[in-house]
Amino acid sequence: MAQYFDQINKIAYEGADSTNPLAFKHYNANEKILGKTMAEHLRMAACYWHNFCWNGQDVFGQGTFGRPWLEAGDAMAQAKAKADVAFEFFSKLTIPYYCFHDIDVAPEGNSIKEYINNFAAMVDVLEQKQAETGVKLLWGTANLFSNPRYAAGAATNPNPEIFSYGATQVFHAMNATQRLGGENYVLWGGREGYETLLNTNLRQEREQLGRFMQMVVEHKHKIGFKGTLLIEPKPQEPTKHQYDYDSATVYGFLKQFGLEKEFAVNIEANHATLAGHSFHHEVATAISLGIFGSIDANRGDAQNGWDTDQFPNSIEELSLVMYEILKAGGFTTGGFNFDAKLRRQSMDRADMFHGHIGGMDHLAMALKRAAALVEKDFLGKAVAERYAGWNGALGKAIQSSEHSLQSLAALVEREQLSPKAVSGRQELLENQVNLVLFR
Amino acid sequence: MAQYFDQINKIAYEGADSTNPLAFKHYNANEKILGKTMAEHLRMAACYWHNFCWNGQDVFGQGTFGRPWLEAGDAMAQAKAKADVAFEFFSKLTIPYYCFHDIDVAPEGNSIKEYINNFAAMVDVLEQKQAETGVKLLWGTANLFSNPRYAAGAATNPNPEIFSYGATQVFHAMNATQRLGGENYVLWGGREGYETLLNTNLRQEREQLGRFMQMVVEHKHKIGFKGTLLIEPKPQEPTKHQYDYDSATVYGFLKQFGLEKEFAVNIEANHATLAGHSFHHEVATAISLGIFGSIDANRGDAQNGWDTDQFPNSIEELSLVMYEILKAGGFTTGGFNFDAKLRRQSMDRADMFHGHIGGMDHLAMALKRAAALVEKDFLGKAVAERYAGWNGALGKAIQSSEHSLQSLAALVEREQLSPKAVSGRQELLENQVNLVLFR
Amino acid sequence: MAQYFDQINKIAYEGADSTNPLAFKHYNANEKILGKTMAEHLRMAACYWHNFCWNGQDVFGQGTFGRPWLEAGDAMAQAKAKADVAFEFFSKLTIPYYCFHDIDVAPEGNSIKEYINNFAAMVDVLEQKQAETGVKLLWGTANLFSNPRYAAGAATNPNPEIFSYGATQVFHAMNATQRLGGENYVLWGGREGYETLLNTNLRQEREQLGRFMQMVVEHKHKIGFKGTLLIEPKPQEPTKHQYDYDSATVYGFLKQFGLEKEFAVNIEANHATLAGHSFHHEVATAISLGIFGSIDANRGDAQNGWDTDQFPNSIEELSLVMYEILKAGGFTTGGFNFDAKLRRQSMDRADMFHGHIGGMDHLAMALKRAAALVEKDFLGKAVAERYAGWNGALGKAIQSSEHSLQSLAALVEREQLSPKAVSGRQELLENQVNLVLFR
Amino acid sequence: MAQYFDQINKIAYEGADSTNPLAFKHYNANEKILGKTMAEHLRMAACYWHNFCWNGQDVFGQGTFGRPWLEAGDAMAQAKAKADVAFEFFSKLTIPYYCFHDIDVAPEGNSIKEYINNFAAMVDVLEQKQAETGVKLLWGTANLFSNPRYAAGAATNPNPEIFSYGATQVFHAMNATQRLGGENYVLWGGREGYETLLNTNLRQEREQLGRFMQMVVEHKHKIGFKGTLLIEPKPQEPTKHQYDYDSATVYGFLKQFGLEKEFAVNIEANHATLAGHSFHHEVATAISLGIFGSIDANRGDAQNGWDTDQFPNSIEELSLVMYEILKAGGFTTGGFNFDAKLRRQSMDRADMFHGHIGGMDHLAMALKRAAALVEKDFLGKAVAERYAGWNGALGKAIQSSEHSLQSLAALVEREQLSPKAVSGRQELLENQVNLVLFR
Repeated sequence: MAQYFDQINKIAYEGADSTNPLAFKHYNANEKILGKTMAEHLRMAACYWHNFCWNGQDVFGQGTFGRPWLEAGDAMAQAKAKADVAFEFFSKLTIPYYCFHDIDVAPEGNSIKEYINNFAAMVDVLEQKQAETGVKLLWGTANLFSNPRYAAGAATNPNPEIFSYGATQVFHAMNATQRLGGENYVLWGGREGYETLLNTNLRQEREQLGRFMQMVVEHKHKIGFKGTLLIEPKPQEPTKHQYDYDSATVYGFLKQFGLEKEFAVNIEANHATLAGHSFHHEVATAISLGIFGSIDANRGDAQNGWDTDQFPNSIEELSLVMYEILKAGGFTTGGFNFDAKLRRQSMDRADMFHGHIGGMDHLAMALKRAAALVEKDFLGKAVAERYAGWNGALGKAIQSSEHSLQSLAALVEREQLSPKAVSGRQELLENQVNLVLFR
Repeated sequence: MAQYFDQINKIAYEGADSTNPLAFKHYNANEKILGKTMAEHLRMAACYWHNFCWNGQDVFGQGTFGRPWLEAGDAMAQAKAKADVAFEFFSKLTIPYYCFHDIDVAPEGNSIKEYINNFAAMVDVLEQKQAETGVKLLWGTANLFSNPRYAAGAATNPNPEIFSYGATQVFHAMNATQRLGGENYVLWGGREGYETLLNTNLRQEREQLGRFMQMVVEHKHKIGFKGTLLIEPKPQEPTKHQYDYDSATVYGFLKQFGLEKEFAVNIEANHATLAGHSFHHEVATAISLGIFGSIDANRGDAQNGWDTDQFPNSIEELSLVMYEILKAGGFTTGGFNFDAKLRRQSMDRADMFHGHIGGMDHLAMALKRAAALVEKDFLGKAVAERYAGWNGALGKAIQSSEHSLQSLAALVEREQLSPKAVSGRQELLENQVNLVLFR
Repeated sequence: MAQYFDQINKIAYEGADSTNPLAFKHYNANEKILGKTMAEHLRMAACYWHNFCWNGQDVFGQGTFGRPWLEAGDAMAQAKAKADVAFEFFSKLTIPYYCFHDIDVAPEGNSIKEYINNFAAMVDVLEQKQAETGVKLLWGTANLFSNPRYAAGAATNPNPEIFSYGATQVFHAMNATQRLGGENYVLWGGREGYETLLNTNLRQEREQLGRFMQMVVEHKHKIGFKGTLLIEPKPQEPTKHQYDYDSATVYGFLKQFGLEKEFAVNIEANHATLAGHSFHHEVATAISLGIFGSIDANRGDAQNGWDTDQFPNSIEELSLVMYEILKAGGFTTGGFNFDAKLRRQSMDRADMFHGHIGGMDHLAMALKRAAALVEKDFLGKAVAERYAGWNGALGKAIQSSEHSLQSLAALVEREQLSPKAVSGRQELLENQVNLVLFR
Repeated sequence: MAQYFDQINKIAYEGADSTNPLAFKHYNANEKILGKTMAEHLRMAACYWHNFCWNGQDVFGQGTFGRPWLEAGDAMAQAKAKADVAFEFFSKLTIPYYCFHDIDVAPEGNSIKEYINNFAAMVDVLEQKQAETGVKLLWGTANLFSNPRYAAGAATNPNPEIFSYGATQVFHAMNATQRLGGENYVLWGGREGYETLLNTNLRQEREQLGRFMQMVVEHKHKIGFKGTLLIEPKPQEPTKHQYDYDSATVYGFLKQFGLEKEFAVNIEANHATLAGHSFHHEVATAISLGIFGSIDANRGDAQNGWDTDQFPNSIEELSLVMYEILKAGGFTTGGFNFDAKLRRQSMDRADMFHGHIGGMDHLAMALKRAAALVEKDFLGKAVAERYAGWNGALGKAIQSSEHSLQSLAALVEREQLSPKAVSGRQELLENQVNLVLFR
């Protein structure tokens, strides 16, 4: 069979002066930055779902992309055709990783047995594709939200049989992820939330979710999976409210069930903004709570209230995110997965390349700028200086619990303290950052 | 001195047919609902700050109210005049409780000594006022956000001396609250957050806040304060981001520092909506997490993105909130504090009464409707029926940790389970609720 | 063929004490309110699209409703089966009107000829159905947004052939609407907007839209259509920005092209809130601009940023909207169309009835309360009193252009005017409204 | 008297490699870009109000800046001290323009006579200051929102005497603007809106506003003012709803009163985002409607729902805005006024310089990038190509009104048209823009 992207060659790095739209201008996989290659820093992945399981339909209209493998036909044959195109794309894009849901890669079938058999057969296919191409699996996951059975959630479903069905999918998806050398396993609770409080028992559903996650941890250890378990926060959509609202909410959930050492978060930029936070905030918060894991790289629209999943293109935003990640030591098993989709009008075959080439170049541009921020580290110095008082005698005494309200009140009164605020120097720091970003 | 509200008599219950705007139509303090009086259920309070410390100014304009006790003059004399008017108001309104910040009631002074002396003198005044009028203190708190010294926060300030100054105020405010019989002590972290991540150490600030809260708990036990400690969540404003974002975030914070048994939350309606949640959501969430404490009763504007602090007037919303509270057993030490302010154009003296009479009547109307919801309890039955499967064999086995992913996968495969979703009946339940609210 | 809703009888009015969920408690079609029947006031319609063209799928999952007429099969046979179910539903619901898009009722086909033939055949079917059941057409419209051809809009498309194709659909849809006795014709510009300004010529697209609307007006007059032309504002979704953003924006567009006497607006509650306005605001604004026409009755979710299209259930909101409409003289050709859809979990056949019965009852409840507001009309009196000065000498002189800045400046200086603000009495008016809504 | 900013010298351009925070790195006033100097392109102004009339207070706390001229004292002496500092600042910053409200520069006084006299005296002072320093007036305006008298608006006030008082201020402010050589006169309707629809007559208020604006136009022509009249849109804050919501709304208002040739808009970035639009959208929309005038350069916070008025610092956003302005021919009388304020923590005297130096540098950086976009103009070419069909026969015929719905329907049917969508190439264009912005 002719290749789907037969008009497109492998994407190469051609440097900043290239005018070839199908080339990298900034992403140079083996270029070293702060002692590691760009590829090692960024650990980028393309996703199966937006690229190969979606035909451009939205709530108001039909698909526009005309993907042949999504047309009616023999389900397994179409799944294999889809895998051919997917790996053709990953290879030509030279992206090192990919990600998938179980039913992205295999037909769901009409029974649990069909599901199991189809998925097993397609895992064989994927294993062979990985071997042929060298493309690796950043993470796997199970889709527990599309089938009508999950209309009221999976782990938080009022019906324990549906909980069990979801557990079955996760069982197989975790096993497949391990077999395929996946470096993480992700749980996004698409419909783990509520549509109306009128019919919902919040405490019951939270307990169910807690038990589900414990089972996931137990299974990980049982099968010896060495990757990281990740929860992906999102505040809403499709549900009115989703339980894994944001990083801080996930942290509280993990603490309640004693799971904070077992899970990290997979932060999506667009989910951050839907939750009322900046992307930068969510990354910095997760790092500060010790639960930072991986990134779903995309962007939302600042004026639209749904998950637009556009390709990331703000170097201003990405550079600060990357700075936080570099300061925290970089990714371990995580990476940047492009959970991004084409606009419905982007119906040329080349558009899928444009989206990813842009995303990869933008991350590379941000990496170079973040490295410059780390090297100069005027931000780190400003922060250290600002909090210097906490390394003094009083600061240390407070932090080591040597003081009570009463002893501090006595101190303040005795010494007639009248401490004054100092400038936070926000405008100055903002200027200095821009001078690095826009050289 | 003549009374400030000399044109206004004590507000009486006159029943639903009254056309007297200065009368209650629905709030009948001693009327029994589900075995308790309205007053016992609602435990309503008026606040000092919006009513007596604010002259109607906003960011774009000067004060409009012309409150004489806010004009220049001898600070202590003005504070006493303010207390006279406040207790005149509370008494005429027949509201059982009030709430204050330390520097609402006493002049801040120019030194810690002046602060302590002024506050002590005014606590004497308040104690006498409470005795004379029978008005009680629902809660006290300290203002750690208005003075320029707290521009970068109090507990989370980069300067440990400012932390100590804040601790000193809390020390005195907790002691005063105890002496005045306050039933709760509240902490709202007005500037405990950040303006820019560029100059902020999130982990450091969180540790400081944790230590501060532990000191508050230690002091509570030391002085034998029997009331409840409350944290009031808010997502932002005045800071770009506030650490006590919402109930779920506060829960995670409390769990991190082992404080989840020591604190509850004081939920403000307008803070809930600023955080992207419904008021109903925040109350139901706090109850489900076991940290529900008290309510700051007000409302925001659905189209405006700041804290408008309007008087609560949606019976539709309040009835569902009240239903949750009744189902959870009602308030213990908490209550409904009107953290609500007049519109800047509401410059008649009677307007302060209109705002509160409306608020009190609206809560009474909601209470009666919530009681009807509890008595019929079709919502409770619908929820019980919806989750009934979790009382069956499979549900119990899962919840008691008898199952693993593997055992559930085996079960689903063996029994060829193919569970189906059932209707969530949202539209039906919504109709039924409205039939109760609008008889 | 057995009826689809064979378990459900015609819905009857049973009064407020009925506990039958499949009965009206408040909507009593022939009950007179302010001299007209409820049916005459409300002019309610059910829509074809959400009820009969949608199977419950959303962006994250497949359909849940299992509608047999949406399954694969002979397209015209399925369209007729759909019409059977639709009119069975309208009749059992006793709703007097319905609304449709051209391709809701007829298969789009694979060519313009098929489209024309299919649509013509289905218009015959609809005509017969209307005659048999007495159900009338509130309005018709053409779907110029679902087919991939309209990905970049119809009237505002960069390709004039696509503009022409859209014009062709509107031509046939207007003709069909006239033949079926439709009382209005609606234009909703679903994709008349932009995804990115980078590829968009705003001025060009606006000119195209202006010409398109002029052609619609010309055609109306040519065929002698007596109904009203309506534009439905929406700010965004599916596009990033939609040109008919809100009523004020549509007004400016109409003025530019001299169309303000030819069009009115069809205001959707959820579109209003997506545009950052209250539903009340949009209705009051359209009335004040003289372009109020009809209502798409639904509601959004105050926390979600997309068009949730839920059934209207806030009596508080609907009563104020209805008050504005009554004060403006009521609908002429417009009415309340339930552009509302079931929740994806509402998969029982009865749920479609629950949604509409609730909607109809809620509008009836609101109508009764609005009538009470009109009868007492303390709001009207308060407004008249507030602006009374404009009936005085100075007010009249200003309004009749007898004054200039200079003459007013001279007057103010000469008379040493120092006018003072008076209370806006917002809290009082809010209390008074609630006393009417919640008797 | 010693200068307030005595530690700070005149700011000079030192080039991109300078590490001096008190120097320009990119703004080089006389550097030519596309044939004009940077100064001529940008026409930048500093504002009086945020810099010299505000002490750092917010709704939750007192001022932090300690500006001596804002302390109690002789009002006229303080106003002169303020002018000294303001012109010291403008001069040291080397910014060519400034802007003011009447009562920014002169004490309001206790009567209309005092207002007139104070303002006249201060206009003399400003005239002399301008002559001494060469700083010019970009625009003047009158503050019709801070005084309690304007609590319910000025032009839209229910009291015609208050309307007249506002007219008096505008009369004097327009005259002063002309005398001082101001190049524009601005009207921002801070409280021209409503707090609640319950007490508001929308139609009446709109008529008042229309008449007011006509009087402004008449006065302009009477005194021969050659500058541009500007309306500044804002959607809300301080009011719940402001009538000049956004550019499209202002356009409709102008059309209603026949004023669209007499007014242009002054677009503020933060007002755009509060209205649910991007800054880019508002500028492009105003240009497309022929009403673009000037810019209030600042930025909002994407997560906060109030007017944060931060200094502009997104080169990504500013470059696209500047591209639109350059393509439209650049400013005529308008310019970039920094309607931006320091963060409350920015209490060092140098911070006011940091904010403005950053803003000026950022606009210069954006100008250089926008010029590159104009020179390459791949965006212009892509747009021209995308709409090329409208220059063909069919497109021209439609635009010249040669077609009706009927003739187009006949054409489509006859020619069996089946036009297809083509790619909008959004991802490609976004990539290309970034390659220019981040060289």
